[in-house]
Amino acid sequence: MCEANAYMVKDGKEELLMEAVDLIEPEDNNGSYRIMNIFGEQKIIKGRIKLMNLVAHKILFERTA
Amino acid sequence: MCEANAYMVKDGKEELLMEAVDLIEPEDNNGSYRIMNIFGEQKIIKGRIKLMNLVAHKILFERTA
Repeated sequence: MCEANAYMVKDGKEELLMEAVDLIEPEDNNGSYRIMNIFGEQKIIKGRIKLMNLVAHKILFERTA
Repeated sequence: MCEANAYMVKDGKEELLMEAVDLIEPEDNNGSYRIMNIFGEQKIIKGRIKLMNLVAHKILFERTA
C-alpha cells in the first residue's frame, strides 16, 4: 500500500498527526487540509504543506504564520 | 514504489503533468509547487492542490482564479 504518514513540523521536529494517510484535500480556502487514512479516520489540519516525499511515505505540514 | 502521477484538472478533465512523482514542495509563497519524479525530472506547477489520493497514485492540481 502506498499511503503515507502525516507529520506537523514544529521547531524542526516532526510530530505524527496520522498514519496511513490516503486522501489529502484542502478545506475551502481557510488554510487547512482534511486528511483521511485507509481506516476512514479523518482530521482537519490547520497549516500548509511543507513537503511531501511519497517514496519515503511522508507528508510534512507546517503552521502558517 | 509509491510515487504518484500528477494531473492538472481543467474543465473537469485530467491532463497528465508528470508521471512517477516523488517530491512535492511549495515554491516560496507564489502559489506554485515544485514537483520532482523518481527520474530527477522537475516541473514548476502554477496552481494549488485539489486532491491527493495516494492509494490511487494520483495528485490533482487546479489553477487558482
